[in-house]
Amino acid sequence: MYIGFDLGGTKMLAYLFDQDMNVIASQKLKTGSDRGPGLVAERIIDLTRTILADTNVNERSILGMGIAVPGVIDFDEGVVKQAPNLGMVEFPLARILRQELPFPIYLDNDVNAGTWGEYRRGAGRGYRHVLGVFPGTGIGGGLILDGKLYRGAGGAAGEIGHMIIQPGGTICGCGQEGCLEALASRKAMSKDALGMVAAGVLPAGFEDYGTDLAAYTSSFFLKAETAGIPEIQAITERAARYLGMGIANLVNLLNPECVIIGGGLVEKLGESYRSAVERSMRAHAMAYPGNAAAVVAASLGDDAVPVGAAMLASDSG
Amino acid sequence: MYIGFDLGGTKMLAYLFDQDMNVIASQKLKTGSDRGPGLVAERIIDLTRTILADTNVNERSILGMGIAVPGVIDFDEGVVKQAPNLGMVEFPLARILRQELPFPIYLDNDVNAGTWGEYRRGAGRGYRHVLGVFPGTGIGGGLILDGKLYRGAGGAAGEIGHMIIQPGGTICGCGQEGCLEALASRKAMSKDALGMVAAGVLPAGFEDYGTDLAAYTSSFFLKAETAGIPEIQAITERAARYLGMGIANLVNLLNPECVIIGGGLVEKLGESYRSAVERSMRAHAMAYPGNAAAVVAASLGDDAVPVGAAMLASDSG
Repeated sequence: MYIGFDLGGTKMLAYLFDQDMNVIASQKLKTGSDRGPGLVAERIIDLTRTILADTNVNERSILGMGIAVPGVIDFDEGVVKQAPNLGMVEFPLARILRQELPFPIYLDNDVNAGTWGEYRRGAGRGYRHVLGVFPGTGIGGGLILDGKLYRGAGGAAGEIGHMIIQPGGTICGCGQEGCLEALASRKAMSKDALGMVAAGVLPAGFEDYGTDLAAYTSSFFLKAETAGIPEIQAITERAARYLGMGIANLVNLLNPECVIIGGGLVEKLGESYRSAVERSMRAHAMAYPGNAAAVVAASLGDDAVPVGAAMLASDSG
Repeated sequence: MYIGFDLGGTKMLAYLFDQDMNVIASQKLKTGSDRGPGLVAERIIDLTRTILADTNVNERSILGMGIAVPGVIDFDEGVVKQAPNLGMVEFPLARILRQELPFPIYLDNDVNAGTWGEYRRGAGRGYRHVLGVFPGTGIGGGLILDGKLYRGAGGAAGEIGHMIIQPGGTICGCGQEGCLEALASRKAMSKDALGMVAAGVLPAGFEDYGTDLAAYTSSFFLKAETAGIPEIQAITERAARYLGMGIANLVNLLNPECVIIGGGLVEKLGESYRSAVERSMRAHAMAYPGNAAAVVAASLGDDAVPVGAAMLASDSG
């Protein structure tokens, strides 16, 4: 059996898998990252022991545990180099956990884990060169090159959100102008939609959505698409066009067989959004490798991250 | 001993190397690509036999031959998939040569070969994650990831020239707008310089450079820099800024230890150009991995391609 952890800034999720990576149980706990990295490590140990106790599984049955972390990870050393949402800097998480837990423990970046999950068990099966692109608050990227996760010299590879594709364009949270994330993330779309509502040009049912950015979720965009609100559809189409342009740059550079797009926005908007991204990719990439790259929707949903984390433990063991 | 070939659209160069990759001899011949790929193959065989005969080297002393080709190559099969300047499409060049030449023969893309040469024998020694960036007529790119040349699913990886970084920007030869190549190549600089001369704003010695784009070489830009012509210096600085921005996107994505910039422009303009590219890279990349990537000038000059081709044969044998 394997354990896959999705360690978020506010909550952590633990999944217990059988050897075929079927989910046997899952549990969650608050991360408590405001109380220091030591406490986070303790809670990981507690939640691991709880899920094993509740399922009557002996820890000797566990062949490995993978932990997906939102940050820059040294995979070989099991060190969290930087994870702002967890308050960790150069934190030797795997070493601490190994003092209490007797099985092999692997850490990786959460987008890497999600991409690996889709590659091994989801939409990326059967390919060897796969890019994962996940638009949400930011835009995460994972690179599977020649059947292996590519992590770069220091574990930071796959950072596609701050690819500059419009110098002088919309300002990004990172301080640069025209980053992909500032143009094509769900958050960028939310800002534009909020502005449209504030301008008072939308019909009833949309005109009073309010000034809280948090209200402009993927569901909002689905609702607007279903209702046929052209002003909001234009925002979605523009974001899909920029995302496809960014993916075209990646396809030209890396010549993959498959680009998996995933996350809440892709799940909610479905085929219309996927096909808009694909059209833009093909319009902006070179004929080859553009026409050699499939653009597919992720298929595992939120399970991609814990499945990928567990598979990384399984594949690395 | 090894043979390294630099197979260009107009001429081919053959180099004979000893086992330490010192050049023993080199010879050249017109490629004759207008007379069909079969003739090009014959000329490669002829030139190989000539250089061996002239140096009294028996073909049994040759451990391998590497051929650098301007196009998309299937390295494993030794097939030139597309090389417009050679008139080759899906051409099984290695198989044809092996019928006449008894040693192992490897084909690769010319920019891959040049990057490999710099990695193994030039400015990239000692690193494992190296990007090669060569601004010239276009902008070529080579990727060495974890100590290996990354060729992508179909041999086309490394295509950085058509990375779109300014939608709606300068039109590119490929038909897109705002490709890196249209903004930052030596050819883009030449077009801008020609326009500046045509505008009649330059001092004596530059005002009558003429309307032939071919006159605006890397030497022209060096001459203008030495003479301190601000209008031309601004063109160079702008191109260096865009090149650094494109490299920042690559550094964010691939987290390399080293970016090698090379080609005639880098050789002519030297440190002022290299440092301008580096400054722009650091200004546009994320703090990490931006500060972890060195930006260095290539050190092998024109030898990088044949040395890299021969090294590929040696390293693959």
